[in-house]
Order: sequence, then C-alpha cells, then structure tokens
Amino acid sequence: MRATLMYGAGDVRVETVPDPTIRESTDAIVRVVRSCICGSDLHPFHTMPVAEHGATMGHEFVGIVTDVGSEVRTVAPGDFVIAPFAVSCGECEFCRAGLQTSCERGGFWNDTVLGTGGGQAEAVRAPLADGTLVAVPGIGEDADDDLLASLLTLSDVYGTGWHAAARGGVTPGSTVTVIGDGAVGLLAVLSARQLGAEQIVLMGRHRARTDLGREFGATHVVPERGEEGVAKVRDLTAGGSAIVLEAVGHRPAYDQAVGVVRPGGVISRVGVPQYAEATIGWPVFGPNVTLTGGPAPVRDYVERLLPGVLDGGVRPGLVFDRTIGLDDTPKGYDAMDAREALKVMVTP
Amino acid sequence: MRATLMYGAGDVRVETVPDPTIRESTDAIVRVVRSCICGSDLHPFHTMPVAEHGATMGHEFVGIVTDVGSEVRTVAPGDFVIAPFAVSCGECEFCRAGLQTSCERGGFWNDTVLGTGGGQAEAVRAPLADGTLVAVPGIGEDADDDLLASLLTLSDVYGTGWHAAARGGVTPGSTVTVIGDGAVGLLAVLSARQLGAEQIVLMGRHRARTDLGREFGATHVVPERGEEGVAKVRDLTAGGSAIVLEAVGHRPAYDQAVGVVRPGGVISRVGVPQYAEATIGWPVFGPNVTLTGGPAPVRDYVERLLPGVLDGGVRPGLVFDRTIGLDDTPKGYDAMDAREALKVMVTP
Repeated sequence: MRATLMYGAGDVRVETVPDPTIRESTDAIVRVVRSCICGSDLHPFHTMPVAEHGATMGHEFVGIVTDVGSEVRTVAPGDFVIAPFAVSCGECEFCRAGLQTSCERGGFWNDTVLGTGGGQAEAVRAPLADGTLVAVPGIGEDADDDLLASLLTLSDVYGTGWHAAARGGVTPGSTVTVIGDGAVGLLAVLSARQLGAEQIVLMGRHRARTDLGREFGATHVVPERGEEGVAKVRDLTAGGSAIVLEAVGHRPAYDQAVGVVRPGGVISRVGVPQYAEATIGWPVFGPNVTLTGGPAPVRDYVERLLPGVLDGGVRPGLVFDRTIGLDDTPKGYDAMDAREALKVMVTP
Repeated sequence: MRATLMYGAGDVRVETVPDPTIRESTDAIVRVVRSCICGSDLHPFHTMPVAEHGATMGHEFVGIVTDVGSEVRTVAPGDFVIAPFAVSCGECEFCRAGLQTSCERGGFWNDTVLGTGGGQAEAVRAPLADGTLVAVPGIGEDADDDLLASLLTLSDVYGTGWHAAARGGVTPGSTVTVIGDGAVGLLAVLSARQLGAEQIVLMGRHRARTDLGREFGATHVVPERGEEGVAKVRDLTAGGSAIVLEAVGHRPAYDQAVGVVRPGGVISRVGVPQYAEATIGWPVFGPNVTLTGGPAPVRDYVERLLPGVLDGGVRPGLVFDRTIGLDDTPKGYDAMDAREALKVMVTP
C-alpha cells in the first residue's frame, strides 16, 4: 500500500510499504477513508533530523474496518470507524477515568513500541481495537463529504478543542479567550460556544481563519500579539479573562495566556508545548492562576460530540479548506507550513 | 512602640518606632497579643540587600483592637481579632469570590503602598478593617496559651495548608502527598485529613516535625529526597499520587511534585515559588497534570476553620515549638534558620 513517510525536516515522501496485518488478537485493520495533516505534524516537519528510515505520519483518520483479530468484539469488518489519536485499552484505571491518553497499555499512532503506522496511508493496523475505535452505525464511505470531514475532526481537533474548553471549566456565561486561530483554536471557540460561553475573544490574525472563528462563535477578534494583544484583551475583558484556552504550543502563546488571565482564572493548554520550562513563578502563583490541560482524551468525548455532528447542528469539518489525494501529502505539508491552507484533508 | 525591622540578610533588629495611628476612616489599630515568624520571612533573611532604612516584618498576628476609624463597623475597641496575612476590602469582585489575596484595594502587611507595618511589633495599623479583620467574640488576651497559638495559625499557616488541600481537591478517600515538613506542610496534612484523605504521604526528614505530621494524620513518611524519594512515593501510591501539595517553594520541591504526581492529578502549590520558570513541558502536559494554588485567601477560610479551633477538635497551634518575647525576634530568626525551631511565636 501507499503511505506517507517523513525522512527529516521538510522531507515528506509517499512510498509503497507492506500492507498492515493482524498481529494481535485485539487488532483491527482499517482502510482509511479520510485522513489529514495536523498542526502538530509541522513540528517534526520543522525539526526532524535526517533519518535513514522514514517515519510514518498522520494520527487522524476515519475508515472502514476490513479485518479483526479473534478477540475483537465492538467493531467488525464493514464498520465505519473513527480512530482517536490515542490508542487505548478502554479497561485500565485511566481509560475508565476518561484519560485514555494515559492508558496503561496504549500509546499513539506511529509508535515504535506498539508498532503502529500512521493515518496518512491507505490502511492502518489499530491495536486494542475495542478500546480505541468507535463504530458509527449507518455511516459508510459514501457519506456526504461535509459529514465525513466533520466526523474526521472527532479523531483529534474537535475533541482537542473541546478538551481545552472542558478543562478550562467553561460554563454558561463564561468569558473565554482563545489563543491561536489554527484548527484547534477555532474548534475551541466552537466548543466554548457550545458550553455556553458568553464572551469569546479569539486571538489570531489570519482573516479567513478568524472569520470562521466568528462563525463558530467568537464575539471578538484580537489580531495583535505580545504586549499589545494582551492589553487589548485585558481591556475587552475588563481586567483579564477568567478562562484562557491556549491552542498553539509555542512559548509566546503561553506568555500571552499568562498575560491575559484574570486573578483566580484558568489557563487550559492543548497546544503541545514546544518549550520545556516557562513562567510559573509569581505571575502565575500570585493571582492563584490554575494551569491545566494536556493531550485530549478524544475517545472520551466522541459519544458526547457525535450527535451534533450527525444531525448537522455543528460543522467542525469547516476547518478543512483543502482536500488532496494521498500522493500529494508532501504538497499538503508545504501548504500548511506556508499557511496557505488552514487544515488539509487527505483522500487515499 | 517596639517593632522588628530587617536591614539586610541576617540583620534583624528590634527598635523603637512611632506608634501607629488611624490614617483613614476605615482603619483600625490593633495591639498585638501574639505574632510569629514565618518560613517565608526566611527568604529575605537569606537574600535581602543591605538597606539604610529597615523593613518592618511579620504578617501573622492576633490582638486587641484599640482604636477604629469613623467608618469601621464590624470591629470595635476591645475586640479580639485575627488578622489574615492579606489586607482586603471584603467588597470587590475578588473578595466576594473568596480570593481576598487579589483584592482590588488591598495588599499585604509591610506594604509601602498601603503604608502598613508588620505583626512582629507591639501594634499595627490595619487598613480596610471591616474586610480584613475577623473578630472572635468571647476571646480575650487572657485566653489559654494553646488556644491563642491555634487562633494565631488562622492568620496564615493553617489557612495556607487548608488552601493547598482545598485547591488540590481533597475529598474523602483521596491519596495525597505533602511535600515539606514546615508548619504549612504539617497543616496541609491536618487539612487533608479533615477533608477525608485516606492516604497521606508526608515527604520530610526532620523527625520531630514528621512525628507531628503523623499526629496530624500522615499515614506514611518519606524522608528521602530527589529521585529516591520520588521512587518511594510512586511505590507507596501504586504509580503516583493523585493530589500533591507543595508547601516549600524551592525548585527541588516542585520537581519532586512533578515526579510523584499521578496522570490526571493535581499539584497544588502554597510555598511561595523561589523560581521564575520551571518544568511545564511534556512531563506536566503529557499526563494532563493540573497545577494550581497560590497565596491563600485565609480570610475566606477563617469562619470554616474557627469552630474546630475553638472547640479544641484540632490543635494547629502545635506547630509552635518555641515562644519568645518581642525583644528576642532576632534570635527567633536564627533559631528558625538553623532549623532548631519549627515555628517561633512572639509575645510582645
């Protein structure tokens, strides 16, 4: 089959690799119907050292189950499934607590320990299929394109935006500031709106994206960054935002979050931090600011978010503004890196 | 009157200064009955640059009101009062939300903006007296020494230990690790016990202190530090402590907290951080660890904690293991710095 591999920063190739096969009795094989490129895929695209063997890529996909191991009970060949970005057993303490990203037996796609490949391919072996995959009855690969796009967001970006808002404690009437106008930031806006936030300030400066942010529920857009952006948000929120959702992961975004948060407020991070250390001294401690968040246990949110997607009440798939074939994934990375595309969907 | 002043690291003096007087109509004057030296007073004791004019010291005291401004309503001359370590108006958004440490009009003792003196003195001017001070009916300076000691802890260390446990989310059955066997750490143990924690691991290595920790409710004591201590706590808690209360403020204590916390867990800090930046990258983000805490709004906790102190159900005053006269405060600093005394009480 064909699959996307990265050989170093800026070096993405589509190559023929062996088809995935059942290795464990708890495995399933999924033929990919839609996958995509994530903002977090750009981190290795910028920094990966040159490698002799390519690394498979992609951690978001939906598809059709084609084979299952003997112990698999909850999905069967022919099922349409959503694959959350974390592999999880569904049974351990952390899975039962809704923290599938810390599963004792699980891990992630493109993981050497689990031997998993990536979603930017024709097919994927899914370990711990009962815990990991979510079957969506009544849906097939012939579903409406918009619906498939929205279903795909449940494998990562919508659940990740939701996680930001949920961990941030958004409730009806909340004031929320979202830092970052990437797909996760925009879906954090959508999630905050769904949870009843009254004022939603979106910090971002790409007009097409912030326009979508307004469509998703942002009440204000602040294009300024740094001290200027902080001052503007503090002014808009009469002294600071009680809830700040940080959907970028770079240090300046974190510093902005610390700058705009209100005393007693919460900073909820879902952007994978590209820094080891940052300010948690007096500027965070003094005003009793809480810092929370992490990789989203999207598996835990699928059932909650699926009905709105199926009935069209929400359209998170609008974050995809470009669709390419699998052979074109290298171009998809380039387009996202150049910010020509917000988020690129891949059809194998 | 006599008051304690610090002129630089290691240089504490008791001098005669002008008596405090009413400046604002919302002021009260409090004659100090008991005050004390805080672990956080040791930070300037180690680092304060040499100063021409001494800085007044002390932020914990109980006393008798001797005078009030014309607008003061809730305390009157003759009242016995507890003075929380933050001055607060009681009326602003943050005071109403129980975050008096972020009061819009308040501040702290020994504050140049508010013009406040310190508790290690014969008397103190208390601004915003209605919001700041808590009268305790039926108590006078002739009260039992043990009771006065416990009442004094409500001005800081007991409320601060309580804040750690409350912000950490301790509930019946919780597993809690407390880092630090100073007065705040020990009272965090007591607070966790009161909130129903089942397993309380105290990380500390001063036997007399950890013995008091056991009396307050610690179920395990881990004297080891660093990696060894982390490994021991992870073993005792079967993989990490869901709640970690950090009551020291130095970087190694924070690193220990990150080391022992369970995925999805909480680190609640009440030790004033003596670092600007620290690890909040993947080791905190990856397992979805929440970091919370800050200076305790002890004003908000007094009513909750006072009954147990008055009826003797809890004896937080046991943290005082030495009592000195005001003229001896320099010796008190030396004794705490040398760890000869856990916490020193001062009787003017």
